[in-house]
Amino acid sequence: MARYFLHLAFDGTHYCGWQIQPKVSTVQETLEKALSIFVPDHGGIIGCGRTDTGVHARNFYAHFETALPLIPNFLYKINAVLPRDIAVYSCSEVPKDVHARFSAVRRRYTYHIHFRKNPFRNAYSVFHPYTLDADAMNVACVHLLGNQDFTSFSKGQTQVKHNRCEVFSARWEIISEGMVFRIEANRFLRNMVRAIVGTLFTVGEGKALPEKTEEVIAARDRTAAGKSAHPQGLFLDHITYPHIHGTSNR
Amino acid sequence: MARYFLHLAFDGTHYCGWQIQPKVSTVQETLEKALSIFVPDHGGIIGCGRTDTGVHARNFYAHFETALPLIPNFLYKINAVLPRDIAVYSCSEVPKDVHARFSAVRRRYTYHIHFRKNPFRNAYSVFHPYTLDADAMNVACVHLLGNQDFTSFSKGQTQVKHNRCEVFSARWEIISEGMVFRIEANRFLRNMVRAIVGTLFTVGEGKALPEKTEEVIAARDRTAAGKSAHPQGLFLDHITYPHIHGTSNR
Repeated sequence: MARYFLHLAFDGTHYCGWQIQPKVSTVQETLEKALSIFVPDHGGIIGCGRTDTGVHARNFYAHFETALPLIPNFLYKINAVLPRDIAVYSCSEVPKDVHARFSAVRRRYTYHIHFRKNPFRNAYSVFHPYTLDADAMNVACVHLLGNQDFTSFSKGQTQVKHNRCEVFSARWEIISEGMVFRIEANRFLRNMVRAIVGTLFTVGEGKALPEKTEEVIAARDRTAAGKSAHPQGLFLDHITYPHIHGTSNR
Repeated sequence: MARYFLHLAFDGTHYCGWQIQPKVSTVQETLEKALSIFVPDHGGIIGCGRTDTGVHARNFYAHFETALPLIPNFLYKINAVLPRDIAVYSCSEVPKDVHARFSAVRRRYTYHIHFRKNPFRNAYSVFHPYTLDADAMNVACVHLLGNQDFTSFSKGQTQVKHNRCEVFSARWEIISEGMVFRIEANRFLRNMVRAIVGTLFTVGEGKALPEKTEEVIAARDRTAAGKSAHPQGLFLDHITYPHIHGTSNR
């Protein structure tokens, strides 16, 4: 058996997230079906993490195992079979101790909003009809940094053992007619980024002081935080693996 | 009665083009319905031209007339009523001899293609699975310039009196992982840009010599040209009006 690492990207608009679930279309299921054509003995694809319904992934990683040799032009062929909203960029053999989920040491998400109605940004950005106070939001972001319990930004029933995450960076940047949020951590809880973004919106709108964020985190209670922001603005943007050159310092 | 000029943009994905037609959703119909709420006496909206099903407009102009004063915050209100794939950028009163269609002296379209499968470009660009010979395509483009009969690139049954257009510029530019085509003319026939793009594809693929384009035009026969390229890569990009400052030299 050899282990292969897939580097891919997907537009999550038409998928109920990554993870296989009954009766709905997911990225994992779509990818496994396509892979089965060329690698019939793969025992399932392990992804680097879950993504929620409608969330996109600019860079996603997954691995599978097979005893068969990869057919020539595998990349071209699997992309031809996959729908156009999923692209596989590379497939390479890795040592058996490299794991798509457990070997990832750092994950980065981005969230995009725009302030001027724009017919061409709706798929990957959320329209906010007035500008937000970026400075206040960035003051609030400082409270997110470090190793903390993020229960307040987590969706109830999950299988994780604990809700501690180490946030390395979190910052809003002003871009043309909008803003982009970048947050990097060792791990993220389910729904965490969208709950953080929703909470930061209340600060940017002047409905909460930046310092309130500290209280929200300390409460360890999802109801203390703001509403979840819409999924279409969210991208799983980057994942750092020690074994992949170039993923560690982008 | 006063005449108002609208500057707008739309994502054409979900519309059967601009022009009102029975039983299908069009941009003109959607806009007229929204306008009727705030300007009940408008006698219909005149657009700067038609666009085909699925074609986008980055800059589109239209006019209407009314005897009523425009309500305060008209722009904000009409945008709130319009779906998110149509945005009105401005509305301003113009002299009665300014006409959205007949006053336009120059129109520019762009066509976008990408060569690497990319889940995030599908809505506004067409995936071409291999690169094209841009130099050969640009040699072919030279044959498009000037005042010529473009019957070969026109869809049969149209109401226009003649098929002569003056093409001012036509050129492919290489961009990141793709190409963009820009063509500017005094007017365009129905389906013309997509028929030109399809014909230039045959040159870029090495299936036809650049000089063949001259023969295609001379044939004055739609069957001499290539297939129509897909609509989602096409944008009505810019329109020049003598009365609008800034539209003349962009």
